[in-house]
Amino acid sequence: MTANMNQQVQLAARPVGMPKPSDWNFTSEPVREIGDGEIVVKVLYLSLDPAMRGWMNEGKSYIRPVAIGEVMRAGGIGKVVASKSPKFAVGDTVSGGLGVQQYWVGAANDKTAALYKVDPAAAPLPAYLNALGMPGMTGYFGLLDVGMPKAGETVVVSGAAGAVGQTVGQVAKHKGCRVVGIAGGKDKCDFVVNELGFDACIDYKNESVKDGLKTHCPNGVDIYFDNVGGDILDTVLTRINLKARIIICGAISQYNNTAPVKGPANYLSLLVNRARMEGIVVFDYADRYPVAVAEMAKWMKEGNFRTREDIVQGLENFPDALLMLFEGKNFGKLVLQVAAE
Amino acid sequence: MTANMNQQVQLAARPVGMPKPSDWNFTSEPVREIGDGEIVVKVLYLSLDPAMRGWMNEGKSYIRPVAIGEVMRAGGIGKVVASKSPKFAVGDTVSGGLGVQQYWVGAANDKTAALYKVDPAAAPLPAYLNALGMPGMTGYFGLLDVGMPKAGETVVVSGAAGAVGQTVGQVAKHKGCRVVGIAGGKDKCDFVVNELGFDACIDYKNESVKDGLKTHCPNGVDIYFDNVGGDILDTVLTRINLKARIIICGAISQYNNTAPVKGPANYLSLLVNRARMEGIVVFDYADRYPVAVAEMAKWMKEGNFRTREDIVQGLENFPDALLMLFEGKNFGKLVLQVAAE
Repeated sequence: MTANMNQQVQLAARPVGMPKPSDWNFTSEPVREIGDGEIVVKVLYLSLDPAMRGWMNEGKSYIRPVAIGEVMRAGGIGKVVASKSPKFAVGDTVSGGLGVQQYWVGAANDKTAALYKVDPAAAPLPAYLNALGMPGMTGYFGLLDVGMPKAGETVVVSGAAGAVGQTVGQVAKHKGCRVVGIAGGKDKCDFVVNELGFDACIDYKNESVKDGLKTHCPNGVDIYFDNVGGDILDTVLTRINLKARIIICGAISQYNNTAPVKGPANYLSLLVNRARMEGIVVFDYADRYPVAVAEMAKWMKEGNFRTREDIVQGLENFPDALLMLFEGKNFGKLVLQVAAE
Repeated sequence: MTANMNQQVQLAARPVGMPKPSDWNFTSEPVREIGDGEIVVKVLYLSLDPAMRGWMNEGKSYIRPVAIGEVMRAGGIGKVVASKSPKFAVGDTVSGGLGVQQYWVGAANDKTAALYKVDPAAAPLPAYLNALGMPGMTGYFGLLDVGMPKAGETVVVSGAAGAVGQTVGQVAKHKGCRVVGIAGGKDKCDFVVNELGFDACIDYKNESVKDGLKTHCPNGVDIYFDNVGGDILDTVLTRINLKARIIICGAISQYNNTAPVKGPANYLSLLVNRARMEGIVVFDYADRYPVAVAEMAKWMKEGNFRTREDIVQGLENFPDALLMLFEGKNFGKLVLQVAAE
């Protein structure tokens, strides 16, 4: 039997600003024979996330940087096609850190990949990279554990049509909050209001965020879930209530900066309002993921929770697809389909 | 009997940048006759605080701005010299919002002045404007309620020799923390280490804060009590630990800016470290002041808690004395003595 070839995308250079084609290296090698305890996973879908940009930088962070010459890190969903481990059988569908490649090969209990079985009958596979995956877990625990929403409070979320934003807004609605999204473009705004049930959405590309907040948050902002940083964070800071909670989840507006990050000039609003700004990293909640998955899957089954994915085809399109995130071109959770189900 | 004359300092104009002499108006009027329920308080000491700069600006804040033509707001200590109220007797020593003037006249139960009796035998009167007054309450509740220190943690406080900083550091030592101050000049640093018992102090005027933090906080920073903002806040953000708490108490480096406030460019360290930045306003803790006063007064009696005041004489020196704060020229809690005890 001839071994399958495994195409991989390696980090070739640390990007300065926006990643460019020469920052990537496409290689191909045969899938190696596996030993005891090892498995081969055929990658079906990969999750493309703003956080990837941070992993490409050198320096101390919540996770080690991807090394030059290493396969780019990515979460994904795949199917077990060979197994010498009792943990997974051929045909199992698994989720975990598969990397930007066609096949993942390694020990079934590899700590970095942290593979776990998912039920392909319970939800469409891309949903496991969205509300039922890392972005969903981020939104769920960030909102509930850091934001601590109370019914009747006003929640604002930026990147509202994105993977994390979709979850934040819908979970907040389920908790009885008023939810106002911020997104780029009329289509995304219509989507989060009409499909996801947000109370309102501010189109930052075509209207003033400040005016939008005045109109749609007449009682001020109790919780702001921030995925973008920059000017939008600064504007929301002018509208927060006493004891507001700002969840710092990301700052996509700043990730490709070559200039220093723009700090929130209005941060003294935290003082005036005795408010709090707090960071979240999803991995801290790993032991409670099943709780979140169960609750959101239940809402999905009941028809009270929707997700939208934007699926790009083909490993070769990884570099361009990643850029869509930073240009706001994806509409819904961005997923790269590497192989047919 | 001839009425006493009451010299007052009114806000004449809203300062642009650093307050200048023409922003003040010195006036004099006879102390008026009092009616039922009213008292006259002879002002002895006034508290000069960085927060005063904020009260001089227009715009929504945690307290209304001082109006043009109004006596400048200030907390103080005075003696009741006339009373038609059963609440206070002539000779009582009182603390509250007396304003920058020689005599306070009004209803004994005036809500804005919020006068309360203090015991002149229990502590020197200026201490009631320091550790036993607003700055002390700010440091005490900011550290304990927002910072939530645990024994063994490392606490860093800027403005360490100032009114709030003195309290923060000493309370943190009493709670079993390692305490590192940041202050301007060798004298202040020597004072907080040798007199107040801090473990170390970084002289930001003569050494690198970054290097100082590396040297004196070998286990990182768990709590940062920020009185200054600006570059020092940004530097500390690079040294915080997982789950660190940053208490935003003030930003004296930014108060006289004519340019926009410099936001903390390193705020994404909150994300990486799942850390929190939270504002404090002392008035929220008013019903618990007696608890704090009792605990710190006890430590003082036992010789385990010291305070230092920098006392400037004479109401006429108010404008210059206030500037000392922003130039870091005061050494200890800045107090204006308006009349002899």
